Amino acid sequence: MTTAVTWIAADWGTSHLRVWLMDGAGGVIERRASADGMGTLAQDGFEPALLKLVGDVLPEGQSTPVMICGMAGSRQGWAEAPYATVPCTPPAAAQARLVGTSDPRLRVRILPGVKQEHPADVMRGEETQIAGFLSLNPGYDGIICLPGTHSKWAHISAGEIVSFRTFMTGELFALLSGQSVLRHSVAASGWDEGAFAEAVDTVMSRPERLAADLFGLRAGALLHDLDGATARARLSGMLIGAELAAAKPYWLGQQVALLGATSVAAPYRAALMAQSVPVTLADAERMTLEGLKAAQATKDTK
Amino acid sequence: MTTAVTWIAADWGTSHLRVWLMDGAGGVIERRASADGMGTLAQDGFEPALLKLVGDVLPEGQSTPVMICGMAGSRQGWAEAPYATVPCTPPAAAQARLVGTSDPRLRVRILPGVKQEHPADVMRGEETQIAGFLSLNPGYDGIICLPGTHSKWAHISAGEIVSFRTFMTGELFALLSGQSVLRHSVAASGWDEGAFAEAVDTVMSRPERLAADLFGLRAGALLHDLDGATARARLSGMLIGAELAAAKPYWLGQQVALLGATSVAAPYRAALMAQSVPVTLADAERMTLEGLKAAQATKDTK
Repeated sequence: MTTAVTWIAADWGTSHLRVWLMDGAGGVIERRASADGMGTLAQDGFEPALLKLVGDVLPEGQSTPVMICGMAGSRQGWAEAPYATVPCTPPAAAQARLVGTSDPRLRVRILPGVKQEHPADVMRGEETQIAGFLSLNPGYDGIICLPGTHSKWAHISAGEIVSFRTFMTGELFALLSGQSVLRHSVAASGWDEGAFAEAVDTVMSRPERLAADLFGLRAGALLHDLDGATARARLSGMLIGAELAAAKPYWLGQQVALLGATSVAAPYRAALMAQSVPVTLADAERMTLEGLKAAQATKDTK
Repeated sequence: MTTAVTWIAADWGTSHLRVWLMDGAGGVIERRASADGMGTLAQDGFEPALLKLVGDVLPEGQSTPVMICGMAGSRQGWAEAPYATVPCTPPAAAQARLVGTSDPRLRVRILPGVKQEHPADVMRGEETQIAGFLSLNPGYDGIICLPGTHSKWAHISAGEIVSFRTFMTGELFALLSGQSVLRHSVAASGWDEGAFAEAVDTVMSRPERLAADLFGLRAGALLHDLDGATARARLSGMLIGAELAAAKPYWLGQQVALLGATSVAAPYRAALMAQSVPVTLADAERMTLEGLKAAQATKDTK
């Protein structure tokens, strides 16, 4: 490695640790990752896990800043970084929790998540993706949707997160398609655009039907040879449709920025466009890095 | 054992095998059970599993009738007993599938399940509970609800199952409370009547909110110390409320007979009574036995 590492950006989630070794000009020298997620570590396991991944690039005789977002800041993580409360700007360096380390080559800070008192809701990590999107799109006013295991919908105005809601859509899809009786009928891959669109439409216009229609995927396979890929698209459509029905106060009459990997964001995009909602796509991992860069660039008052 | 076993009633589900050793007057000599459910057996494992449980009581030199209901009659079971199609009376001996056995002391018949073409739906076992309820309540006209892992709602008229729908409520509750992120916030036991009733009411009046409210159980625990027993009752209320919202065409303006164990049926009873629906409770296991007795009593034309 010829360029010196000036600081390190880190996205530390429940199941992963991703770091970017950064130069002094905002450029990425190298991206690294490990499976040492928050969920696998005791409190005293975080520093060793970080050193395992980046110890070889830390200059001696100085402390290299590490800016972390995500679940490492939860109560069960490395050190709790208490939530900021909406309405608020995405947390920056001044709100970050400074974490003591044994190794003097590290200067670790963890960004807080964001909470909402009523209705009760929390995020950790997504606020940094939002910060990244806003740093690339200053003045953005509208909705940011972050689809995933626990999808988030956030209302953004004047640079602040005004309100947000979480939906368990990705986790429900994984449980139903992988562990419920539907696993016999839902394929692990494959897609059917028409079945997806129809399912979204049905549950959005009649959300009370969801509970009745789920088992229909199993019965349809038993009685009418319903194809596994079609069942997969239909299940996804039911769950995303239920999410869109509940999130309607967010997207109705608004523009929506979708922050996610293409495979996750594509069905949301299709469903929103069918509702004539203007949609912008942005890559979630890039937004995370941009958010960490934005936080690192703010004045640290500590 | 002093009384001779005249025939054997059997409820063979996915996870259990229950048998009743019957005398000639419709009385139960003994109830036995094993964990040799359909889900654990290959096709050639059913006869040995049955012999293990009842082989000691089978008289020599004659064949003892065994009347079976449940998943043993599915395609992955002992022998497929093809579905009857609604509208139909619950299947009786004449529709049962006669299954060949190696042991001449057995004369095994499996009752068919019931299917509905549109909307696609199936049941195996519940039709026998319905038959049991109808044999004790001849002329019953109204709705039978069988709450459980896969709850069924059936419209009964003139002794026939006219139509029915299945809801994955019990399975959803188990997955969400035991395996999703909500497992950290939902207690394994405990109850809160008020929280249950409020959750049922909320989702029934605004079913589109379900997807948004689920994660609120987790956030409520993190931010407002939401009690685990309250969260459990609220989750149950959300899911049963979603089921009632979808099943409204069944229960609205009808009388409902609830067939289930008390612990499972009690919340349904509370939720239905809050809607001013007249509810009768009946024990599911007893209904199964009565249904098998009713089937055994019919003329077997084979």
